Amino acid sequence: MHPETPTGYHCMPLANITSEDFVFHGFVAGNTNNSFNAALTSAFVTDFPGLNDLGISAARLDIAEGGSIPMHTHPGATELLIMVQGEITAGFLTTSAVYSNTLKPGDLMVFPQGMLHFQVNSGKGKATAFLTFSSANPGAQLLDLLLFSNNLPSNLVAQTTFLDLAQVKKLKARFGGRG
Amino acid sequence: MHPETPTGYHCMPLANITSEDFVFHGFVAGNTNNSFNAALTSAFVTDFPGLNDLGISAARLDIAEGGSIPMHTHPGATELLIMVQGEITAGFLTTSAVYSNTLKPGDLMVFPQGMLHFQVNSGKGKATAFLTFSSANPGAQLLDLLLFSNNLPSNLVAQTTFLDLAQVKKLKARFGGRG
Amino acid sequence: MHPETPTGYHCMPLANITSEDFVFHGFVAGNTNNSFNAALTSAFVTDFPGLNDLGISAARLDIAEGGSIPMHTHPGATELLIMVQGEITAGFLTTSAVYSNTLKPGDLMVFPQGMLHFQVNSGKGKATAFLTFSSANPGAQLLDLLLFSNNLPSNLVAQTTFLDLAQVKKLKARFGGRG
Amino acid sequence: MHPETPTGYHCMPLANITSEDFVFHGFVAGNTNNSFNAALTSAFVTDFPGLNDLGISAARLDIAEGGSIPMHTHPGATELLIMVQGEITAGFLTTSAVYSNTLKPGDLMVFPQGMLHFQVNSGKGKATAFLTFSSANPGAQLLDLLLFSNNLPSNLVAQTTFLDLAQVKKLKARFGGRG
Amino acid sequence: MHPETPTGYHCMPLANITSEDFVFHGFVAGNTNNSFNAALTSAFVTDFPGLNDLGISAARLDIAEGGSIPMHTHPGATELLIMVQGEITAGFLTTSAVYSNTLKPGDLMVFPQGMLHFQVNSGKGKATAFLTFSSANPGAQLLDLLLFSNNLPSNLVAQTTFLDLAQVKKLKARFGGRG
Amino acid sequence: MHPETPTGYHCMPLANITSEDFVFHGFVAGNTNNSFNAALTSAFVTDFPGLNDLGISAARLDIAEGGSIPMHTHPGATELLIMVQGEITAGFLTTSAVYSNTLKPGDLMVFPQGMLHFQVNSGKGKATAFLTFSSANPGAQLLDLLLFSNNLPSNLVAQTTFLDLAQVKKLKARFGGRG
Repeated sequence: MHPETPTGYHCMPLANITSEDFVFHGFVAGNTNNSFNAALTSAFVTDFPGLNDLGISAARLDIAEGGSIPMHTHPGATELLIMVQGEITAGFLTTSAVYSNTLKPGDLMVFPQGMLHFQVNSGKGKATAFLTFSSANPGAQLLDLLLFSNNLPSNLVAQTTFLDLAQVKKLKARFGGRG
Repeated sequence: MHPETPTGYHCMPLANITSEDFVFHGFVAGNTNNSFNAALTSAFVTDFPGLNDLGISAARLDIAEGGSIPMHTHPGATELLIMVQGEITAGFLTTSAVYSNTLKPGDLMVFPQGMLHFQVNSGKGKATAFLTFSSANPGAQLLDLLLFSNNLPSNLVAQTTFLDLAQVKKLKARFGGRG
Repeated sequence: MHPETPTGYHCMPLANITSEDFVFHGFVAGNTNNSFNAALTSAFVTDFPGLNDLGISAARLDIAEGGSIPMHTHPGATELLIMVQGEITAGFLTTSAVYSNTLKPGDLMVFPQGMLHFQVNSGKGKATAFLTFSSANPGAQLLDLLLFSNNLPSNLVAQTTFLDLAQVKKLKARFGGRG
Repeated sequence: MHPETPTGYHCMPLANITSEDFVFHGFVAGNTNNSFNAALTSAFVTDFPGLNDLGISAARLDIAEGGSIPMHTHPGATELLIMVQGEITAGFLTTSAVYSNTLKPGDLMVFPQGMLHFQVNSGKGKATAFLTFSSANPGAQLLDLLLFSNNLPSNLVAQTTFLDLAQVKKLKARFGGRG
Repeated sequence: MHPETPTGYHCMPLANITSEDFVFHGFVAGNTNNSFNAALTSAFVTDFPGLNDLGISAARLDIAEGGSIPMHTHPGATELLIMVQGEITAGFLTTSAVYSNTLKPGDLMVFPQGMLHFQVNSGKGKATAFLTFSSANPGAQLLDLLLFSNNLPSNLVAQTTFLDLAQVKKLKARFGGRG
Repeated sequence: MHPETPTGYHCMPLANITSEDFVFHGFVAGNTNNSFNAALTSAFVTDFPGLNDLGISAARLDIAEGGSIPMHTHPGATELLIMVQGEITAGFLTTSAVYSNTLKPGDLMVFPQGMLHFQVNSGKGKATAFLTFSSANPGAQLLDLLLFSNNLPSNLVAQTTFLDLAQVKKLKARFGGRG
C-alpha cells in the first residue's frame, strides 16, 4: 500500500507544498482607465503556479461603460464566461456564421477553442464577468497586436489582409509597429 | 480554400446551430433549504449541451450559514473555485497531508483532479462561489452516497472502512441504503 | 492469437475496404484565376476519407505571380510547407514577433498550431508548395472571411478591431458581409 | 534511413540500457502479518523504472483468511484483477449502484478509473490476485488514511462526512490523525 | 448535486448494467495442441465488453515444452508479462539492440508499444504467463501472417525483405498465401 | 491582457528564437548509390529542431530504377506519401489483407500508424516522393535490421519466424548480425 502524491504539483518537493500553493488572492477588478476602457486580471499558471498541469485557469474581466475587449483568440483553450454585473455583448466568428449574444447576470457563454471573439460592454455602467479556460495557460492573441505591432512591411500586411495601405500604416502607428 | 466548421458541436447539423446554443441561462442561486443547507446549480454538458467536447463546465454553489458540501470527488476533472460572497473553508485530502484554506471574495482555490474535498460555510450569512471544472461532465461522487446508499452488507462496509457497524447502519438508514 | 484489424478505418466494415480507400488522386494544381491568384487543392478527410482518425492530411498550393494566400489560421493543426517550385515569402505572427522567411525549392517551413500566417508569391512566375497538416481535418479560417463576410454590425466590428468604419464597410462589401 | 530508438526509455542514454531494465524480479507474496492481514507487492514505475511512460504497471495482492484491502481509489488508473488462488469478494461503488462479485481462479474483474473499491478474502485460506493498472504510476488513496490520518479538526471531518464525532475521534486515534 | 455514472460503459443504458458486466470468466489454459505448441486465451474488449474505453486488457499464455509465440507486434499497446509457471525466454527487437531475458515465476517483463517481440518456452514442461496490455484492444500482428498469408507477388515480398524467393514461396505455402 | 508565446518551442528562451528556427534547408535528393538503390532525406525533429512538440515531420524519398525501400514500420506515426516523379508501387500489410497501389504524380497514399509497409520503384527511371508523418519523430524500424543485425541466436530467430536456419544465417551475414 504505497500512497502516492496527487498529480499536478510534481515540480516542487512534496514536503515544501503548503495549502497556500492552491490559493490565489487578488482576483479583483483591475484598472479600466486605459485605451480599451477594460481590465483583465488573470489567474493563469504564470500568476498562480498551483495550476500547473491541472488544465484550468481563470480571469476577471471588468469593462467600463463604452469599453470593450477587442478581437482575440486563445489558441489552446476554450473560454467559459460567467456574467456577474452589467451587460456584455459577446460573440465569436466562424467562416460560416457569427454567434453573438447579449449577456446579463445569470448567463454563461462558451467560446470554443481557437475561435476569434470579442466582448463589448453594451449596457449602462460597468460590466464584470469571470472567465475560465480549459487550460492552465490559455494565452491570448489580440488581433491588432498580431497584425500591427510588428515590423512586417505595411504593403505585405495590406496584401495579405486586403486592408488599405493607409489603414495598415495608421494602426501600425497606434500599436507600435514598424515597416 | 475550404472553410471548416469550428470543433465542438459536430453532433448537430451546422445549419441548425444558433447563438443560443452557446449560452446558458439560469446560473442563479438554488434553494438551500435542504439537509446540507446548500445548493449547487450545475451547468454541465447535461444542462448546457453547447459544452459538448469543449472540456469545461461550471456550477454555482450557495451555502447557507452553517451549511456545507460534504466530502466528494470529481473523478475526471480539476475544480477551480471562485469566491463571490461570504466565507468558505475548503480543503482536499491526500494520504500525506490536508490542504485547506479559508476563502473570501477575491480568492480562488484549486482542487486537483480526483482529490477528495469539501466546502464549509465558515462565516456569517450565506456564502456563494462559482465552481469551474476542466471537463464538460465532471461528475460528482458524494462519499456518503457511495458508502451508505447501497445494498452492500453493513458488515462488509464496516470491515472495509473500519467504521463501527452501528455507525454504518445509522448512516445507511439516513442515506437510503439497505443491507 | 486473434489478429486485429489496423486502427483508422473502423467506420467501414473491414470486408468492404480496398486498397483504393488509402489513395487520393488529383493532387494537382488548381485554377489560380481568382481574386487571390492562388489555388489550394485539399486532401483533407472530407476529400480523402481514408485519412479518418489518422492525424494527418495535405494540400497542394499554387500561387500565380503576384498572388498570395491571405492571413489565416488552422485552429487544430500545425502546418508544414514543402517548397516545390518558385519562391514564396511566408510568415506567422505572434504578439511578440513575426517569423517570416523567403522559401525556395528544397526548403521546408513549419507554422505552429493556431498561429495566424500568410504565404505570398515573392518571385517570378508561378510558385508551388505542398502543405501537410498534423490533423486529418485542419480547417482553415481566413481572417477576412471571419471579419467581413458576416452580419455583425459594422460599427461593432470597427470597435473591436480599431479599423476605421469606412474600411470595415468597404471590406464587408467585398467579402459578402452585411450590417 | 535513420533508425530511431523505441519510445519509453528516453530518460537514459540508449547505450546504458540493458535487458535487465525491462525486467522486474520479486513479484512475490508480501508479509500479511499486519492489521489488514493483507500485503501488496507493487511493481509501479517507482519500483520498476523501465515502465516509465509505458502506461502500465502491476501489483501482487495476497490476503490472509479474514483479511481485506479496505476502500481506496486509484485516481489515475483503471485496475484489472486476475484471480490466482482462493476467493475474493470485490466491488466498486458508484452513487447509483454497487458492482460486486465473488471471484475465483480463472476470473478477472475490472475497476474503472477513479472508482472507490475494496477486496475481501471471502474464502478459506489465503487468497492471491495479480493486479494490473492502466498507468505506470497508479497511486493508491486509502479512504481511512485520507479521512483520519490528518490534522483536520474532528468536528469538521464529522460535519463533512456525517460520521459521529466519537467515530471520527476513534479512527483518528487508530490512523495517526490529530485534531 | 447531480451524481454521474462512472466513465467507461456509456454504451449501455446505466439501468441495464450489472456486476457481471465487470467480470470475465474462463481466463484458463487454452489447448496447446497446435503448430505453435502454444495457446493464448484473450480477455480483450472483444471478449470482455466491460473493458470498453478502460485502457487495459489481459491474456493468458500457455506454451508447451518446445513451443513458442513467434515474432509479433501490438501496434497500439505496451505488454506487461507476469510469469506464473515454468520458464520463458522472451525479447523484443530494436534496430540497435535486442533486449531479451529468461523469465521465471516472480519475474515481470515489459515490451514497449509497437516493438517486435517473441516468447519461447525455454524450460522443462509447460510454461504459463499472464499478459496485460495498456489498451482494451491491443491487436496482435503475427509477422508470418503479415508477410506470408497474403496475395502479394512472392518476388515483391522477396525484394522488400531480402529473403530468398524459395523461402518466401515455402512460407506462403505454409501460411496460406498466394502469389 | 498578457500575450503568451506560441506553443511548440518552449525549450529555447523566446528572445533567442529567430525565423530561421522554423525553416529547414536541404530537403533534396540523397545519394541512391547503395544496396537499396534508394535514399531518404529526413527532416525529423532530430534534423529540424523547430518541429519539437509540433506533431509533424517530413522526408524526401528517392528510389533509383529497380530500387526499393524494404519492409519497415513507424511505431508512432502515420505516413502520408505524396508522389512527385516516376512510379512507386507501395503497400502495407495487415493480418487479413494487403493494401497496395501503384502511384504516379498527383497521387497520395496513407500508411496507418504502425503498419508494416514497403515502397518499390516499379517504373522507368528514378522515382521521387515526399513523405510526411503525424509525429515530429516517426522513427523507422527496418524489418531486416530488427531480425538480422542483432546477436540473437540464429536458431531462436528461426524458431520464432519459421524461416529456415540457413536463410537466417545468410541474412545475419548480410546485415551484420552475430549468433
